[in-house]
Amino acid sequence: MSGGADQLPGFHAVIPAGGSGTRLWPLSRRSSPKFLHDLTGSGRSLLQDTVHRLGPLCGDRLMVVTGSLHEEAVRDSLTGLGGAELLVEPSPRDSMPAIGLAAATLERRDPDIVLGSFAADHVIRDTATFHDCVREAVAVARDGALVTLGITPTYPATGYGYIRLGQPWPGGARARRAEAFVEKPQLETAQSYLSEGNHLWNAGMFVVRAGVLLDLLAQQHPSLAAGLRQIAARPDRLEQIWPTLPRLAIEHAVAEPAAAHGKVAVVPAEFGWDDVGDFASLAAVLQESVDHPGMRVLGPHGLVISRDSTGVVSAGGGRTVVTLGVPDVVVIDTPDVILVTTRERVQDVKSVVESLRRGGREDLT
Amino acid sequence: MSGGADQLPGFHAVIPAGGSGTRLWPLSRRSSPKFLHDLTGSGRSLLQDTVHRLGPLCGDRLMVVTGSLHEEAVRDSLTGLGGAELLVEPSPRDSMPAIGLAAATLERRDPDIVLGSFAADHVIRDTATFHDCVREAVAVARDGALVTLGITPTYPATGYGYIRLGQPWPGGARARRAEAFVEKPQLETAQSYLSEGNHLWNAGMFVVRAGVLLDLLAQQHPSLAAGLRQIAARPDRLEQIWPTLPRLAIEHAVAEPAAAHGKVAVVPAEFGWDDVGDFASLAAVLQESVDHPGMRVLGPHGLVISRDSTGVVSAGGGRTVVTLGVPDVVVIDTPDVILVTTRERVQDVKSVVESLRRGGREDLT
Repeated sequence: MSGGADQLPGFHAVIPAGGSGTRLWPLSRRSSPKFLHDLTGSGRSLLQDTVHRLGPLCGDRLMVVTGSLHEEAVRDSLTGLGGAELLVEPSPRDSMPAIGLAAATLERRDPDIVLGSFAADHVIRDTATFHDCVREAVAVARDGALVTLGITPTYPATGYGYIRLGQPWPGGARARRAEAFVEKPQLETAQSYLSEGNHLWNAGMFVVRAGVLLDLLAQQHPSLAAGLRQIAARPDRLEQIWPTLPRLAIEHAVAEPAAAHGKVAVVPAEFGWDDVGDFASLAAVLQESVDHPGMRVLGPHGLVISRDSTGVVSAGGGRTVVTLGVPDVVVIDTPDVILVTTRERVQDVKSVVESLRRGGREDLT
Repeated sequence: MSGGADQLPGFHAVIPAGGSGTRLWPLSRRSSPKFLHDLTGSGRSLLQDTVHRLGPLCGDRLMVVTGSLHEEAVRDSLTGLGGAELLVEPSPRDSMPAIGLAAATLERRDPDIVLGSFAADHVIRDTATFHDCVREAVAVARDGALVTLGITPTYPATGYGYIRLGQPWPGGARARRAEAFVEKPQLETAQSYLSEGNHLWNAGMFVVRAGVLLDLLAQQHPSLAAGLRQIAARPDRLEQIWPTLPRLAIEHAVAEPAAAHGKVAVVPAEFGWDDVGDFASLAAVLQESVDHPGMRVLGPHGLVISRDSTGVVSAGGGRTVVTLGVPDVVVIDTPDVILVTTRERVQDVKSVVESLRRGGREDLT
C-alpha cells in the first residue's frame, strides 16, 4: 500500500470495524463478526477488501477503529496490508464516538485533514467508480462541507435509510445538497422514492475535514466532542472517559442537523454497493456456481453437491453439504451450528439469534 | 434374554443383518448400515430392537447372519443381549443364501427346528400382536408349510412387493393361503390392491422348518441347497464354497414357486410395521417433537431448534441444527456430510448416492 500517483493528499481513510452482523448468523458471530469473513470468495475478509479498496486513495493514511474484543483478530487481518493505524474502543458506542475518536485524533495532527469513513463490512463491485466518487467528495469536503456518498437505489429497499436530494452543490460536479436523512421507510414510501428518483440510500459513508466534524459535533453534543478531544489529547485517559460517552449514530448526532442547515453535500454513487446485511444479500453478491446453476456457494465449492436446488450454501464446517430438490434454500454450515432457512425468511434470522441470547445460549451466538 | 414362559419350543429366530439402506444416506452408510443405528429414539439400534422383540419367543435360540464387513460392529451390538449366534457371510449374496446358511446350520442339529427369519432393520410398534402372529406362523410351519407374515396395507405403497391372499389355511386361525408373491406395483395397481383388500405387503418375514426350507430350495436350486448343506457340514469350507453361490432373493428362489404349488401360508398381520426405508418413513416412525410441533427429531433433541418448520431433523453431527421457515424439510447432519432435502424427494437420495459412487466419492457413501 505504498502511495501511488492518484493518492489524495491529506486524505485519511477511517474504517469503523464493528457490528456483529446478526442476520448473517451463524456465519457471523459476536466473536467473529462479518467484517472478518470472506463473504465474496475473494480470498480476503471484507475488512481486508475495504483496506485494499482505499489504499490507492489514502496510501498508508488509514485508521481502523474496532472494539477491544476484536483487536487481535483485526491486527492479524491487517498484517501485511501496510501501516494501518488501529484505534481500540473499550466498549461499543455506535458510529459517532467511533468515527469521532478517529477525527479527534487526526484533528490534533491537522484540523484540515480530510477523513473518509467507510464501513469495514460492505461490498463494492466497481472500485474505479468508487474512487471517482470519493475524489469528488474529498474536493467538496475541503471547502468545509460534510459530504456523504449516496447510493442510487436499484429496488425499493426498506432495510436502508435514505438521503433526500436537493439542488446541485455549488462548484460540485455530481454533488448535490443533501436535504435530509430519513429513516428506513415502509415499502410504499420506498417505492415512491424509487419512482421519483429523489432519494439515495444512506450507506454511512462520510467525508469531512476532521476539524469540521468535531465542530459540528460540538454544536449538537458539546460534551461528546469535548470528551473525544480530551482522549485525543491524552490517550491514557481513554479507559476513563470512554464509558461516559453516549451511544450515538453519526446520522443523528451530526448529519441530520447539519443537513437541515444546508451544510451537507451528497455525491450520488453507482458502484455496485451492497451491505451484505443478510443471506439474500450475500447470495446476490456471490457468483452463480458453474457446476450448480441457480446455486451460490460460499466456501470450498468442492464441498457442495446441489441437485435441483437454488439459493445459497455456505460450506464452512468442512463437511460436504448436499441439497436435493430444495428451491430458494439457505444452508449455512459452521463448525458448531447449521442453519437451514429460505431466502424469504432471512430477515428472521435476527430474531432466532435474539431468542437464543434470551434463552441462555449466548455460546452459539 | 433367559427363557420365559411363553417361549416357543424348538423355535429359532434368524436375523439377516444386511443391506446398506441407501435411501437413508448419509445416516446409513456401507460402513455403518441402517440396522446399526437407533432410528426410533429407543436408545437401541434397530438390530438390538429386533433381538429384544424376538427374545420372548426364542430365548437364546437366536442367530444373526451378517457380512464380514460388519461382523465386529454386530458382535459389539449384541454384547449383553444373551447368547446370539453369529454367522458371517464372506460376501453379500442376497437373502436366500443368508437365510439358507442359517437353515442349513440348524437343519444339521434337527431338521424339524422351526426358524423364523426377520430383517434386522424394520420397526414394529405392537410387539404383543407381532408375537401372536409369529406364534400362529410357527404352529402352521410345524405342519410343513412355508409361512410368511403379510402386512395389511395402510396406503397404496409402490415401494413394497405384495402377497396375494387365497383361501383360509386349513387348521389356521387367521392364516390364509398365499397365492402369489407379486413385484412392486404401479400406483394404480397398488390402489386396486388396497381397495380390493386381497393383497398384503411382503415384509420378508418367513417361518418354516429348517429341513422344509432346504428341501424346497433343493427342488428349485439344487446346487445352492447342496452348497449350503456342505458348508453346514464343513464350516471350514465356507470361504471356498460361498463365492460359488448365486445371488438370490428368498422370494424368487423359494417362496414364489412354493406359493404356486399351494405350499405357502400367510398370516395377515397388523402390528405397526415399517421398514424405515427412506426419510419419509423415518419421519413416520418418530414421535413428533414436544418443543417443535410438526417436527420429528432423531438424535439429541437439545441440538435442534426449529421455527415454523415441519419435517424431520437428524442431529447426528454434534452440532446445533436450526431450521427456520422450511416446510416438509429433511435435514440429516452427520460428522462429514449434511443432507438437506424435502419429504417429496426422499426417494431420490438413492440416485445421489449412486452418482457419488460413480463419481469416485465412495468415501462419502
